[in-house]
Amino acid sequence: MNEHIVRSFEEELNHLTADVARLGGLAEALVGDSVTCVVRRDVPLAQTLIVRDKVLDDLEIEIERAAVALIARRQPLANDLRRVVSAMKIAANLERCGDLAKNIAKRSLVLAESDPVTPFARSIERMGRLVASRLKEVLDAYASGEVAGAVSVWSRDDEIDGHYESLFRELLTYMMGDPRTITGGAHLLFVAKNLERIGDHATNIAEIVHYEYTGTQLGDQRPKLEGVP
Amino acid sequence: MNEHIVRSFEEELNHLTADVARLGGLAEALVGDSVTCVVRRDVPLAQTLIVRDKVLDDLEIEIERAAVALIARRQPLANDLRRVVSAMKIAANLERCGDLAKNIAKRSLVLAESDPVTPFARSIERMGRLVASRLKEVLDAYASGEVAGAVSVWSRDDEIDGHYESLFRELLTYMMGDPRTITGGAHLLFVAKNLERIGDHATNIAEIVHYEYTGTQLGDQRPKLEGVP
Repeated sequence: MNEHIVRSFEEELNHLTADVARLGGLAEALVGDSVTCVVRRDVPLAQTLIVRDKVLDDLEIEIERAAVALIARRQPLANDLRRVVSAMKIAANLERCGDLAKNIAKRSLVLAESDPVTPFARSIERMGRLVASRLKEVLDAYASGEVAGAVSVWSRDDEIDGHYESLFRELLTYMMGDPRTITGGAHLLFVAKNLERIGDHATNIAEIVHYEYTGTQLGDQRPKLEGVP
Repeated sequence: MNEHIVRSFEEELNHLTADVARLGGLAEALVGDSVTCVVRRDVPLAQTLIVRDKVLDDLEIEIERAAVALIARRQPLANDLRRVVSAMKIAANLERCGDLAKNIAKRSLVLAESDPVTPFARSIERMGRLVASRLKEVLDAYASGEVAGAVSVWSRDDEIDGHYESLFRELLTYMMGDPRTITGGAHLLFVAKNLERIGDHATNIAEIVHYEYTGTQLGDQRPKLEGVP
């Protein structure tokens, strides 16, 4: 293999990982904005989010196509192949984050029609910020190749689970206290669950980054809260 | 490329798709049993499910490793590469079905401690059967390469959405009528949502099968109910 081909493969791979980084940025923004929709009852913002998610879907398809084409054309081996497969897998996780954020935006439209969620606004906002920051951290670790950053995100998923669990219990108590809050409360349960799922995707991405750079699997020893399913 | 190598690639690919089929069978059984846990309040069964999900996780990792190794060793082109990538993607979807079934099993443990869900048992059971049958159909289409079967699954996802929506509304009404049912009702909302998600994975698999065999994307024209987010 000559110098030229080697350089070109690197260039193509860099192009691919740059697209993944861009998808990551879009997902991060979508997640942050989806929480704003809920907290500020911002209907126009929610409507733009539902449209913006399509951009993520298309970019993910594009990344997968480019990755498969890169494999077919360059036939990368071992480490290089692992990097291309990782890009595809991370893109799939980010696309799911976009779907979950879109779902939060849709629920915010229902919530905007019912009573304000004031007692939970701060909790939801805090959980949203936490989840978005984990997504940002793991994307930074991916971009910089700093495995320690990925491990750090991975090992702190139980914090997000903790937020979810207390929100779950508080919401049920609230709903029991006033049956008129049941519809809004049910949608908020799903908003909280979606945020927890986005946290899980950040954890998945951390595992992919770890495997990409070390060739070894982050084990089953991740701290897991065994509370609300 | 000589005859021997060609045959060996086919053999390895067949081995890979057989593993995906096996994972599919395990996922199908897990989904069916998870619904039984809820409907029959079967605590011992739920406990075995939580353990059985690990088998799916491990098999998915194995399939992905084998697929990447196959690509590295054989460097398949165009169609063959697409078949290997499809196997990986279908496995990822099936693993998620297993996770969702495990989550249903965990919720059945909470439900077994609260009032029986008798009024919803039949609805949940019917929705579970519908979802499991879609999963079976799409796996059959994958195994036989009959694209029409995949398209058929894909085009009928709105039936599952319809089940989910009516169950969602009925559950909220039930919870409003008797606040003591709120905890159980909330978990049943998630059970229904998980089944709907498993249906979405069957639809994803249908899209992957279609792309694998035709090289074209099933468009955005899928019938979609725009009701409960």
